[in-house]
Amino acid sequence: MPGEFDLIQRFLACFPKARVPVGPGDDCAVLAPSKGALCVTTDAVVEDVHFTRATFSPGDIGHKALAVNLSDLAAMGATPRWFVCALALPKDFPARHLSALGRGMAALATAHRIALVGGNFTSARELSVTLTATGELSHPPITRAGARPGDRLYVSGTLGDARLGLTQLQAGLRRGSAVRRQRRPEPRVALGRLAARFASAGLDVSDGLAQDLGHLCAASKVGVALELERLPLSPAVRAALGPEGALKGGEDYELLLAIPPSKAPAFERACARAGEAVTAIGVLTREREWALKDGSGRLLTPPGGFDHFARSSRQILADD
Amino acid sequence: MPGEFDLIQRFLACFPKARVPVGPGDDCAVLAPSKGALCVTTDAVVEDVHFTRATFSPGDIGHKALAVNLSDLAAMGATPRWFVCALALPKDFPARHLSALGRGMAALATAHRIALVGGNFTSARELSVTLTATGELSHPPITRAGARPGDRLYVSGTLGDARLGLTQLQAGLRRGSAVRRQRRPEPRVALGRLAARFASAGLDVSDGLAQDLGHLCAASKVGVALELERLPLSPAVRAALGPEGALKGGEDYELLLAIPPSKAPAFERACARAGEAVTAIGVLTREREWALKDGSGRLLTPPGGFDHFARSSRQILADD
Repeated sequence: MPGEFDLIQRFLACFPKARVPVGPGDDCAVLAPSKGALCVTTDAVVEDVHFTRATFSPGDIGHKALAVNLSDLAAMGATPRWFVCALALPKDFPARHLSALGRGMAALATAHRIALVGGNFTSARELSVTLTATGELSHPPITRAGARPGDRLYVSGTLGDARLGLTQLQAGLRRGSAVRRQRRPEPRVALGRLAARFASAGLDVSDGLAQDLGHLCAASKVGVALELERLPLSPAVRAALGPEGALKGGEDYELLLAIPPSKAPAFERACARAGEAVTAIGVLTREREWALKDGSGRLLTPPGGFDHFARSSRQILADD
Repeated sequence: MPGEFDLIQRFLACFPKARVPVGPGDDCAVLAPSKGALCVTTDAVVEDVHFTRATFSPGDIGHKALAVNLSDLAAMGATPRWFVCALALPKDFPARHLSALGRGMAALATAHRIALVGGNFTSARELSVTLTATGELSHPPITRAGARPGDRLYVSGTLGDARLGLTQLQAGLRRGSAVRRQRRPEPRVALGRLAARFASAGLDVSDGLAQDLGHLCAASKVGVALELERLPLSPAVRAALGPEGALKGGEDYELLLAIPPSKAPAFERACARAGEAVTAIGVLTREREWALKDGSGRLLTPPGGFDHFARSSRQILADD
């Protein structure tokens, strides 16, 4: 394995040069934010917890490590700006795989105009990539608190595909859209920035809609009436998991947004103009409990119970 | 092992509440920097690479993980402000050890007035703590580039103690000042802020003085005449390692500073007033090579050769 400095150079070579006062190579990067408030998030992907080297290419790992962080910035309505990358590399990790990991990360970074400004390399028994990403806010941030009874609940894209993709990878499949959603999630950065003008609350769906909706309800002190039949599902997910399976999802990296009813029409028009797919899936309620309804409005599960949704696919992987 | 949310609450309970627009618990933290430029750094400590659970208490691990990041902020002359903490925890890591790790980190954070604003938990086979720390600059940053021939070279504190402490830990010792330097390094934050008014270049000594001085010389395009006899050594290091061993050091977390000769007297006076121990150890030179001199000015090693100093104690640990 080449020396640490060779590895750093090889990795940095994948990325465009950051336009910051001080970039990689010093003790710290120096940033010159143009606006007042900054968002910061940190998230890691760990071998045999979030991916295996048998089912993810190095480029997939690099993409996903950045995507999960960008998704957190998207969930606040922030514009991605800078990130730092801490890599823990096993001794048997080939230098060419490091470059491929860097290229996978750099392609997504370039698409979202976020600059790598620093990082750290260490050896470790298992491969892990821990990123910290920073974004700028031009609106007040979208937090989990702030939703009110009566707000409409929207979710972007489709749910459950990444969970289905995980099952398919474990069964030996290596292609298809569900597998792609598992390996190469697309953070909803543009939608987050758009939604910042409308949303009373929101977050990204990383642990499954049921669990993440629970976080929103708890932080906003509201309940929810969710229309199960309205959940946006791909035909493959509808057939394989159904809506209840998609609720448990995990790693969707879609945005879940609460929109005040007065703003809902303008939000829907803005999404249509921007080509952002969002679906209204329910309404937030004063009663701090859950109601799951089918197409005819019938209650499907007793209110109050969403603990049985709490195991996400991430945790299922972690327990493997 | 308790659930992820219990663990997060247990860890957060160790820290004072961060005074930021949005703190831990949302998708991102939101920061409101008061000044223009920010410094950001990321550094990790990994089990069996940077520490073992047999020789470091959980509190030591928490302290050291933050200390190595604060040292990078100190090296830029920044004022610590906010950090995020990504923890990778083995399943057998007891919850009470997590609290002890948090308390060790929180004590140092409180001492340096840096606030924990967010983080991430994941399971992993080995324990690792990856922090990203941000500081504010009230002066231009101290970078590695910018030193000029004729600048005086200063180093803070004493060198080699942490390396000696590592040897002692490996030999079964569990007490003493060298062991404490290895487990609980004290980042030179106040000195870094003071030095920002005087230094032409600087960095923290994390990989051994020889290697880190090499970085400064390369970035500033200068050479150095180093007076070996002037290296500040504790009696224990002088006896066990001697100055050449201390040069290879590793994990000293002292600051190495280049000060223009016109500013050197004022710098020394300011350090004396502030109670910061610094020692003049040499002069930077136009010839881009190294001269190591003994007390009588005699050349000790052929110039140009510091590659044989390149193995740091971190790398020695990593190769174990």
